[in-house]
Amino acid sequence: MDETVMLGHGSGGSMMKRIIDEVFFDAYGSDELREGNDAAVLPLDQNGGSLAFSTDSFVVTPHFFPGGDIGRLAVCGTVNDVATSGAVPQYLSCGFILEEGFPMDDLRRICTSMAEAAKEAGVKIVTGDTKVVNRGHGDGVFINTSGAGMVPPGVRLGGQFIQPGDKVLVSGTLGDHGITIMSCRESLSFTSPLESDAAPLNHLIADVLAAAPNVRCFRDPTRGGLASTLNELAEQAGVDITVEEADVPVKPAVQGACDMLGYDVLQVANEGKMVCVVAADQAEAALAAMRANPYGRDAALIGDVSAARADRGPKVMLRTALGSTRFLDMLVGEQLPRIC
Amino acid sequence: MDETVMLGHGSGGSMMKRIIDEVFFDAYGSDELREGNDAAVLPLDQNGGSLAFSTDSFVVTPHFFPGGDIGRLAVCGTVNDVATSGAVPQYLSCGFILEEGFPMDDLRRICTSMAEAAKEAGVKIVTGDTKVVNRGHGDGVFINTSGAGMVPPGVRLGGQFIQPGDKVLVSGTLGDHGITIMSCRESLSFTSPLESDAAPLNHLIADVLAAAPNVRCFRDPTRGGLASTLNELAEQAGVDITVEEADVPVKPAVQGACDMLGYDVLQVANEGKMVCVVAADQAEAALAAMRANPYGRDAALIGDVSAARADRGPKVMLRTALGSTRFLDMLVGEQLPRIC
Repeated sequence: MDETVMLGHGSGGSMMKRIIDEVFFDAYGSDELREGNDAAVLPLDQNGGSLAFSTDSFVVTPHFFPGGDIGRLAVCGTVNDVATSGAVPQYLSCGFILEEGFPMDDLRRICTSMAEAAKEAGVKIVTGDTKVVNRGHGDGVFINTSGAGMVPPGVRLGGQFIQPGDKVLVSGTLGDHGITIMSCRESLSFTSPLESDAAPLNHLIADVLAAAPNVRCFRDPTRGGLASTLNELAEQAGVDITVEEADVPVKPAVQGACDMLGYDVLQVANEGKMVCVVAADQAEAALAAMRANPYGRDAALIGDVSAARADRGPKVMLRTALGSTRFLDMLVGEQLPRIC
Repeated sequence: MDETVMLGHGSGGSMMKRIIDEVFFDAYGSDELREGNDAAVLPLDQNGGSLAFSTDSFVVTPHFFPGGDIGRLAVCGTVNDVATSGAVPQYLSCGFILEEGFPMDDLRRICTSMAEAAKEAGVKIVTGDTKVVNRGHGDGVFINTSGAGMVPPGVRLGGQFIQPGDKVLVSGTLGDHGITIMSCRESLSFTSPLESDAAPLNHLIADVLAAAPNVRCFRDPTRGGLASTLNELAEQAGVDITVEEADVPVKPAVQGACDMLGYDVLQVANEGKMVCVVAADQAEAALAAMRANPYGRDAALIGDVSAARADRGPKVMLRTALGSTRFLDMLVGEQLPRIC
């Protein structure tokens, strides 16, 4: 194990997996934590109901960017994580770590944005905390949100339920958030302006579940992008996943930026997209429900699940436009630090 | 309103109250948030049960100190906040914001400490998140914990239920945590060594509730100390509170350090103490239950509640050992930054 914390330990890729396995699980690895879904699903003592519970901290820089800001991300990110369990997100907590000297007007703007995103998602911010660190020991504003909601009876989603034969959908174009942040930082401009996709997807998830109850799982491809998310799912379920490159929706401007800068768009972060694995016979229904939602217009069926080969572990493969197939690996180090 | 964030906005005193009122409540002040208790108590859709939900971020420096570390604080602080509602704390989330270069061994030590505190409290860490910020933009480690638990049927606690005639208890000596942190920072040493009081108090709270069901509220006097906590409660209930200075338990070494350094011990932070307001006829039962718990051996009855005078707002008063009475004000600015 590395002797110090490195940026890659927060990347969403294999270095992060290592710090989680070797430090956090080693110290306090509960079954729920080890399950590895975005929200823990927890029995509540009295009545047999299940609580979905999730947490996320946000350290994105810059704080404001086209399509959103750190406040919108903080609400949408946790709403989406709770919703992946099939739960109805109801309540959010909000913990600020502010740096001395941060402009109060920027804080107001962030809070207003959080309020708007919460309203759109239909959740309430019900509890909070504020810490201030001395100048030079923070970076303006960090936000933690945690979220809670009840899982409807009979609903149980998670990567562990994926089976060979299932289909893989994605709710829209990939890479928009990561490339927008990167272009803000580098002051790049493109002929078609880019925007972050930050959005609350709980209503989209509810629509898909209503149309296709045999969804196995949802997962939002944030840090580490689609590649890391699919590798997590393949490992969790012990299956292979094959993605058709030509079917993956990517905006031309985003693809152009990736080509120019040497990024693999499948490893770039998204903040308003959902991966959905569903039984084959309900894949079309799920896709239609996604496309009928404003945040899912560009949804696509991008791949399918098969049994893992006996001679190696579960793998994710990409069938390229040229017809060749290559392994699609999890992000290893850090591609774009502090993307969310 | 101030134009930038200042350290005092995180103090637990009146500046923090201002940023909460004028920024956070203004943007997204839900009824639950405005209620002003340490944990929100929330209806869950299906079954009439109530969820207690609370969040806290920890930025204490140094990370390790006599009696505890940032990990123990992070678990105990949130367990205690959830427990103040009368709920049984069950589940914790844990969000780390790590600075690049933080020693992995220190992180392991913190996680081990969190695991021990969680075990003692009987809670599970069920969901987590890890972010890494670049060197110079954090301070080693910040931790957010959020906590959830069910409130038993019929239990409803909160500052709003305090009535004239009630009694005020505190579960032990005051100022231990704040003065320990301060003496670490300043490398002061005392003839009697000081220790932080960081401790999970959920079992103590359960013991008190079993013995004295007419408890009105619990609140832990962390940032801003007893003075700020009592002012919050007085304002929430619209009552006066009078404290007998001679009855407030303070260790001689802590009082000595306060006298030497010019701190008011009643404004110094605690991390393992609980203020309890209880109906007068159950005050002795509550006190006995506290004293029977290992974390409540020095518990004391320190004051009582009366109707607020018509000619001014609710006030907290201190009757000194000399027999005079003075107003005991909320902490205004910042006394000891980053105490938790």
